[in-house]
Amino acid sequence: MAQYPPVMRDLPAFLYGGDYNPEQWIREKDTVWKKDMELARRAGINTLSVGIFSWSMLEPREGEYRFEWLDEVMDMLAENGMKAVLATPSGARPPWMAEKYPEVLRVDGYRRRQLFGNRHNHCLSSPVYREKVRAINTLLAERYKDHPALGMWHVSNELGGECHCPLCQEKFRVWLKDRYGEIENLNDQWWNTFWSHRYSSFGQVESPSPIGEGCSHGLKLAWRRFVSDQFCEWYRWETEPLRRITPHIPCTTNLMEIFWDINYFDLGKLLDRVSWDNYPRWTNDDRDAEVAAYTAFNHDLMRGAGGGKPFMMMESSPSAVNWQEVNRLRSPGLLMLQGMQAVAHGSDTVQYFQFRKGRGSCEKFHGAVVSHDEREDNRVYREVCRVGERLKTLGDIPGSAPENRAAVLFDWDNRWILRDAQFGLNPDKGYEQTVIAHHGAMLRCGIGVDVIDQTSDLTGYRLVSGPMTYMLRPGFAEKVRAFVEAGGVYVSTYCSGWVNEEDLCFMGGFPGPLKDVLGVWDEETDALDETQRNHFTWQGKRYETKDFCALIHPEGAKALSEYEDCFYRGYPVLTENTFGKGKAYYIAARTGMDFLTDFYQTAIRQAGIAPLIPDLPRGFLCAERAGNKGRFLFVMNTVPRENTVCLPDCRDAETGDTVKGKTVFAPYEVKILRV
Amino acid sequence: MAQYPPVMRDLPAFLYGGDYNPEQWIREKDTVWKKDMELARRAGINTLSVGIFSWSMLEPREGEYRFEWLDEVMDMLAENGMKAVLATPSGARPPWMAEKYPEVLRVDGYRRRQLFGNRHNHCLSSPVYREKVRAINTLLAERYKDHPALGMWHVSNELGGECHCPLCQEKFRVWLKDRYGEIENLNDQWWNTFWSHRYSSFGQVESPSPIGEGCSHGLKLAWRRFVSDQFCEWYRWETEPLRRITPHIPCTTNLMEIFWDINYFDLGKLLDRVSWDNYPRWTNDDRDAEVAAYTAFNHDLMRGAGGGKPFMMMESSPSAVNWQEVNRLRSPGLLMLQGMQAVAHGSDTVQYFQFRKGRGSCEKFHGAVVSHDEREDNRVYREVCRVGERLKTLGDIPGSAPENRAAVLFDWDNRWILRDAQFGLNPDKGYEQTVIAHHGAMLRCGIGVDVIDQTSDLTGYRLVSGPMTYMLRPGFAEKVRAFVEAGGVYVSTYCSGWVNEEDLCFMGGFPGPLKDVLGVWDEETDALDETQRNHFTWQGKRYETKDFCALIHPEGAKALSEYEDCFYRGYPVLTENTFGKGKAYYIAARTGMDFLTDFYQTAIRQAGIAPLIPDLPRGFLCAERAGNKGRFLFVMNTVPRENTVCLPDCRDAETGDTVKGKTVFAPYEVKILRV
Amino acid sequence: MAQYPPVMRDLPAFLYGGDYNPEQWIREKDTVWKKDMELARRAGINTLSVGIFSWSMLEPREGEYRFEWLDEVMDMLAENGMKAVLATPSGARPPWMAEKYPEVLRVDGYRRRQLFGNRHNHCLSSPVYREKVRAINTLLAERYKDHPALGMWHVSNELGGECHCPLCQEKFRVWLKDRYGEIENLNDQWWNTFWSHRYSSFGQVESPSPIGEGCSHGLKLAWRRFVSDQFCEWYRWETEPLRRITPHIPCTTNLMEIFWDINYFDLGKLLDRVSWDNYPRWTNDDRDAEVAAYTAFNHDLMRGAGGGKPFMMMESSPSAVNWQEVNRLRSPGLLMLQGMQAVAHGSDTVQYFQFRKGRGSCEKFHGAVVSHDEREDNRVYREVCRVGERLKTLGDIPGSAPENRAAVLFDWDNRWILRDAQFGLNPDKGYEQTVIAHHGAMLRCGIGVDVIDQTSDLTGYRLVSGPMTYMLRPGFAEKVRAFVEAGGVYVSTYCSGWVNEEDLCFMGGFPGPLKDVLGVWDEETDALDETQRNHFTWQGKRYETKDFCALIHPEGAKALSEYEDCFYRGYPVLTENTFGKGKAYYIAARTGMDFLTDFYQTAIRQAGIAPLIPDLPRGFLCAERAGNKGRFLFVMNTVPRENTVCLPDCRDAETGDTVKGKTVFAPYEVKILRV
Repeated sequence: MAQYPPVMRDLPAFLYGGDYNPEQWIREKDTVWKKDMELARRAGINTLSVGIFSWSMLEPREGEYRFEWLDEVMDMLAENGMKAVLATPSGARPPWMAEKYPEVLRVDGYRRRQLFGNRHNHCLSSPVYREKVRAINTLLAERYKDHPALGMWHVSNELGGECHCPLCQEKFRVWLKDRYGEIENLNDQWWNTFWSHRYSSFGQVESPSPIGEGCSHGLKLAWRRFVSDQFCEWYRWETEPLRRITPHIPCTTNLMEIFWDINYFDLGKLLDRVSWDNYPRWTNDDRDAEVAAYTAFNHDLMRGAGGGKPFMMMESSPSAVNWQEVNRLRSPGLLMLQGMQAVAHGSDTVQYFQFRKGRGSCEKFHGAVVSHDEREDNRVYREVCRVGERLKTLGDIPGSAPENRAAVLFDWDNRWILRDAQFGLNPDKGYEQTVIAHHGAMLRCGIGVDVIDQTSDLTGYRLVSGPMTYMLRPGFAEKVRAFVEAGGVYVSTYCSGWVNEEDLCFMGGFPGPLKDVLGVWDEETDALDETQRNHFTWQGKRYETKDFCALIHPEGAKALSEYEDCFYRGYPVLTENTFGKGKAYYIAARTGMDFLTDFYQTAIRQAGIAPLIPDLPRGFLCAERAGNKGRFLFVMNTVPRENTVCLPDCRDAETGDTVKGKTVFAPYEVKILRV
Repeated sequence: MAQYPPVMRDLPAFLYGGDYNPEQWIREKDTVWKKDMELARRAGINTLSVGIFSWSMLEPREGEYRFEWLDEVMDMLAENGMKAVLATPSGARPPWMAEKYPEVLRVDGYRRRQLFGNRHNHCLSSPVYREKVRAINTLLAERYKDHPALGMWHVSNELGGECHCPLCQEKFRVWLKDRYGEIENLNDQWWNTFWSHRYSSFGQVESPSPIGEGCSHGLKLAWRRFVSDQFCEWYRWETEPLRRITPHIPCTTNLMEIFWDINYFDLGKLLDRVSWDNYPRWTNDDRDAEVAAYTAFNHDLMRGAGGGKPFMMMESSPSAVNWQEVNRLRSPGLLMLQGMQAVAHGSDTVQYFQFRKGRGSCEKFHGAVVSHDEREDNRVYREVCRVGERLKTLGDIPGSAPENRAAVLFDWDNRWILRDAQFGLNPDKGYEQTVIAHHGAMLRCGIGVDVIDQTSDLTGYRLVSGPMTYMLRPGFAEKVRAFVEAGGVYVSTYCSGWVNEEDLCFMGGFPGPLKDVLGVWDEETDALDETQRNHFTWQGKRYETKDFCALIHPEGAKALSEYEDCFYRGYPVLTENTFGKGKAYYIAARTGMDFLTDFYQTAIRQAGIAPLIPDLPRGFLCAERAGNKGRFLFVMNTVPRENTVCLPDCRDAETGDTVKGKTVFAPYEVKILRV
Repeated sequence: MAQYPPVMRDLPAFLYGGDYNPEQWIREKDTVWKKDMELARRAGINTLSVGIFSWSMLEPREGEYRFEWLDEVMDMLAENGMKAVLATPSGARPPWMAEKYPEVLRVDGYRRRQLFGNRHNHCLSSPVYREKVRAINTLLAERYKDHPALGMWHVSNELGGECHCPLCQEKFRVWLKDRYGEIENLNDQWWNTFWSHRYSSFGQVESPSPIGEGCSHGLKLAWRRFVSDQFCEWYRWETEPLRRITPHIPCTTNLMEIFWDINYFDLGKLLDRVSWDNYPRWTNDDRDAEVAAYTAFNHDLMRGAGGGKPFMMMESSPSAVNWQEVNRLRSPGLLMLQGMQAVAHGSDTVQYFQFRKGRGSCEKFHGAVVSHDEREDNRVYREVCRVGERLKTLGDIPGSAPENRAAVLFDWDNRWILRDAQFGLNPDKGYEQTVIAHHGAMLRCGIGVDVIDQTSDLTGYRLVSGPMTYMLRPGFAEKVRAFVEAGGVYVSTYCSGWVNEEDLCFMGGFPGPLKDVLGVWDEETDALDETQRNHFTWQGKRYETKDFCALIHPEGAKALSEYEDCFYRGYPVLTENTFGKGKAYYIAARTGMDFLTDFYQTAIRQAGIAPLIPDLPRGFLCAERAGNKGRFLFVMNTVPRENTVCLPDCRDAETGDTVKGKTVFAPYEVKILRV
């Protein structure tokens, strides 16, 4: 049972706060900043993130630094007993830099140099940009290294995107040379004989482009890996002065769910704590059960990217956001659910974007602790206060972490490769939704689930699920084999074991190196259109298949059910293979949640995992954290109606009351039990 | 009761005619032009618009002018007793100009210089383009200033679009400096501290771009205002020689419904008569009731843009157009309805695009008076003749105008700001549709409605409706306050009073400066998705809400009805505030037409406005014009089926017959009554 | 009765094989190539297409030629008794060429020079590209001219696309000068007076562009004709050394269904045999009846493009393809149907893309004879073997051809013009679907149908259908008149006879020069939206009309049925005109297949054509080939269920059994009868 140190020294273990841009109100600081401090304190806020996007205020002209206002802000935080999550300003450049040094502007895939505007759009290869960032980060670290408010570094903001400028092309070629050595090796790995694509030098390689290469999977995959690696390299580079000057201060950057551009399992390893921005699309109706399950997946993914440690919810909205297609308000209780769910899955912070709504530009209506009315009888503000109060009573929880025996694989490289892959259903194979559905089905069985990738250690788990593991990294099949041999339960599906890490097909039949452990040969895969279905029956219940139906042949495995329609009627649709002390299942077709939930009930039993809460009723989710101060079971009613669940015999961690058996939950209610 | 002078001297008060391009038939002029004159005369046509897009015929090579053919055309019109609406040719440049002076070509948002092609795509800042336009306009004015056929100037054509070339960037910066003075003021007004956007000089500002700035609302709004102002400046510039050389000849340019690019309330002030192009999407079925209501809105808007004066329907199609997705023919009677509806709302012209179909290029199948068959037994031609005959009998009407006591606000700046605004439902808030729905609900109550903007004078009205008045211009709230205090009825809705004219939020609670007159505090606004509804009951009838639901608190106002669902069940959805001698209503949620129509029945009664026709049955619309020669009530059956209405006791203005009580209208029939 | 020579000398008359890229496996040639030969022989394969996209293997660096591997491949084919369809490699350039000579890269409509990537994207005007192609083609021809495996030349691959570079602009202007002579003539033909488009020199003309001209129909049509002509010129140019050095070897290039870019009736005339790539979107359900009918159209079109000669199915997939949105497997029997249907319509080959699946890049999952499993018990491989066996028994068929008495017009120029045309329904008028529906209706009546264009000879036919013949080429109306006068039956529809070959409208009423033979005046055309319908009754059955409804007046013709709704109730919807010894029908509105099938039953009877099989049940199709060795009737069950048809008295061509009367077909079964 691991117990992790707190995110920041000298602070209550739970950080509660949010993004704060007092410099937007500098002309009214006497009234506005004062009001902000009052409202923050009253809400139980102990941390504010400052300095994000402040570059044009910190260096309004090249080399003219203006730290005075930030000094005032830092002092004010300290005086009010708060810590700063201090940001480096690299998330948005000031206009003067773009004007004087166009090289800092990105070039898009069409090879168009971008103009000044928006944010997150600098070229990471630009020497000028690097020099400017290094300079200001060094000044920030030097200036505030001993400031009592400095609690943490927030590096840049929501890293992402890509640049195709000549400097980045050159870096990409160096990266390729490092990876492939000789151009002929690259040609072989990318199967470049196809369509006359064999390069005669690395200099001929150019990044993918809508006006250039769009078909070479090898190139596109390499580009994705390069871009992701470039962000990791950038993060190391940007944090260098921070780590050197303030080695005692932890660093992070805020991640974004299942973001496309960066392999968060790679970047997560570099962060002192993973932090992320959580924006569920709550609907205020029964569909919130799905939203909550999706959010649970993201929390588990972020914890996984951080190697299982507690993480930080760096941003979340105290009310409706402003950028989704439909921005619903949060019903009473939903803000509490959102915060407590983060904690349940391992977050040691509840942080908001944003503390105060700006008066202008495009995020002025994004939910905030303080609205334009500046009123304290504002419904949202009162809910924020309630969350603050509750967090204060949960001091035994931080540092603890879930201890799950089940895991689902979500692998960025697999995802990138599958997006390009052409077969079955184009353009999208539904990889992300499939992994999330398997994760959700396990959650609904009342167990905790880790999200891992193929580089993760499987020992310690009893059940591992690898849906659509199309690509197998070197060594992964061996890991699965050892895992099952030792008694583990492994679940595989259609579209698994087709290609190696360079996207070259395995010869000799799919699922390639997983054939023996799964005991099946996957001969071909049918794709159904939206109107087409197949069916099968298992344990007396009839289910539908859709989208993908693999035609498999047992080679060792036992068929548990067969297709009932089409020319492959009678082919197995679900198989079980006994391998060593364990079992390997193969689900040959895409199914609905009904089957997945029923299947995982069986698989969990087979794996010998006891549910946190058996027979969890629809609308409920649960999660557990365990640490030095005990085990905490979070039971969450994720729907806006009363809902009843049968609880285990234990105590309510907050009230100390005994709970037992049938318990009615209010809409969106979360109970925390000591077990 | 105002009586306005006719559009042109020396002509029947009604202009009847259309766009005519005889130069397309110059090689067959002996037969074609002759035939055209016969067909025009027989149809009652007294005006033809000529010279539109004729530049390459007037100046086929730089400096080589060829006016001879136009002389012939003008003489021919005079000989046939017709007037010319003579166009300046600036709507389309000849190819030689683009070839020799690329600066006349526009640069798009991506900063791509356009190639020659299409029309309406010249850079308004180009000195060369200005010089060429000035030269040819001067020559035209000099040549035809005393020609008996010259009746009016038609300046360019359907102005619109935008250019992002360096010259326009420079003009934009000058415009910004004029408006904001100091760059720091611009930074403050645009809230540029957000995302590090503070400029250090005006030279750093660039127009919005898909490859540059897309998020700064301040910039985007300023750009829209600049573009609109640039067209106004252009119009003044282009008409300078016309006004100087032919001061007796009125000028106009043709507007296009609720066109995005130009604030027509600004441009309209510069026109001697507002003229516009009316292309309803008639469906030949019951949905034509909606089409007619939408068209009525546009007529009222155009009259409003011209300050209430009679206007010109400069273009309309005698038959199906060719550029809509579905181009239905017009059922018998529909052409008459289209023409008479324009007259009913204040048009003193019925003009068509086009007189004769060309043989080639992209508008050859656009409806015309004369088709390729050149036959007189053509159904369309016969309908055109019928309209011509009827107009000849309505000579008492021109110069009169509606005298409405109700108005709805449609404000271009508000519209531009709302399009960028991010909250609730993205990307579109439905501003235009909402205003049109409120206008339509009032029409269906049988009253005439003006369309005004926030700069308009409210005195003289008894009922003013401002749906979604998100932005309040300086002084507007004061105007509303004075209006209600003096006894007026004001209607406001959700999403009103949120920002000032620079898109900065009002602090202290919405609806900002309208709080006292409306007597409510708008705390937050929920957004429902397409499947979600709330409900309320008013005056015994139950209604649905959708899209937007504001959560308001009465602060002085009286709740007339409450939400019935969701967590804000019991919050007011409709309030009434007594303020001075008047009343202010607040509709907190978006509703269907059922509620709006019922609500406005009440509001109209409250305002003391008598309907032109009470209890107007579905499918009917009515409108009234009043002038020196009497009051004319137009009653229009807008559907292709017989329909019955109860008419007031009066006389048919055309037959002189007494009408009274229940009257059956033929499909699409329009009756004109003297009241 | 024509009997054509075989595709290749020294080979079984049926070619069976596919695309083969052994160079992708050069590092494993000892095992892979050997295995390939075994599997090919066992499957009955006698031809393989090699060298497609092999340029970077044949000339890995400029001027460094490497033919050794191809020598080995050619020798291996010869040793295994197979022929090579040897490709010129021009379908894809090696990277070094793009790097050194950017002029070989295309420029798109936006005037952006493309980067290296993909395939089929070279500038046909580039002198460098031409020089390189000429050099390598000459070397190939010289090297293999006497090689026993050389059976045929496959020139480039799937020609298509367009280039807007300065060199191509110059060529376009030369082409225009050749066609129009004087710029004033071009101005007149393109109706350039419209929108001030009169050019003063050819140098002002630029190809259409999204950032330039998009409205001039004359320009857009000329550009389409130029691009198509350029491919014909290219094909002649590329084959020059092949024809010179190996005059005994036939040449082809593979066409693609109703491909947009090239008028295949022009290109087809240049090919020794038309070959094409057939990728039906089989659904494995009853909708395959539609898929098969669509495929039949394409086969008939390709035969038509080749002047009626037998053709080659150059590519088809042995299993699911990988690039459609939904890539279904082929049910057992479907592969046989796909192959036999090609033969039925006149193909003397069954060829696949691809022989072996590659391990990498974007086509690795495209169906192939040999899959990654390399197993012979693979379902697909076994089906391929079955087709190979059957072809061996059908040696009497090759060289024979259908002899049809009915034809439908599909005209590329008409298609291009209609795509730009603006009227009725935009943006698409449904020309292709309409022609295919008329073709399909005739097929369903059990007759064979040729697909021809307006340049084709009509003599020999008894029934010709010209749906939506909007544009009439010079002389076409005269041909129709002569055809009907002599006793033929001609079918016309709405939207016919509107414009001449330059897209200038016919004056004096539509259908222009077809007015007398059709005996109607088409006054105007209504367009219905998706919810709107009209109706008519004919021969006691009621039908629906949709989309287009022409309002016509008989001027000689007899009305057979009238519209029942809308204001044109009572106008004729179907007319018959007796003209000379023949009949001309006019279908005034778009209808469903129900009417078309009933109508063509009548028209076929009128034309005196005897169906191959009367009363063909739904799901069946049939086709006949006739040659020196007899007449062969193919009867095809195109659905995956048992289906019964009444066969004529004759013999099964394969078993020799007598067939007669009611016969049950297995799912997808094809029977070949001698009649």
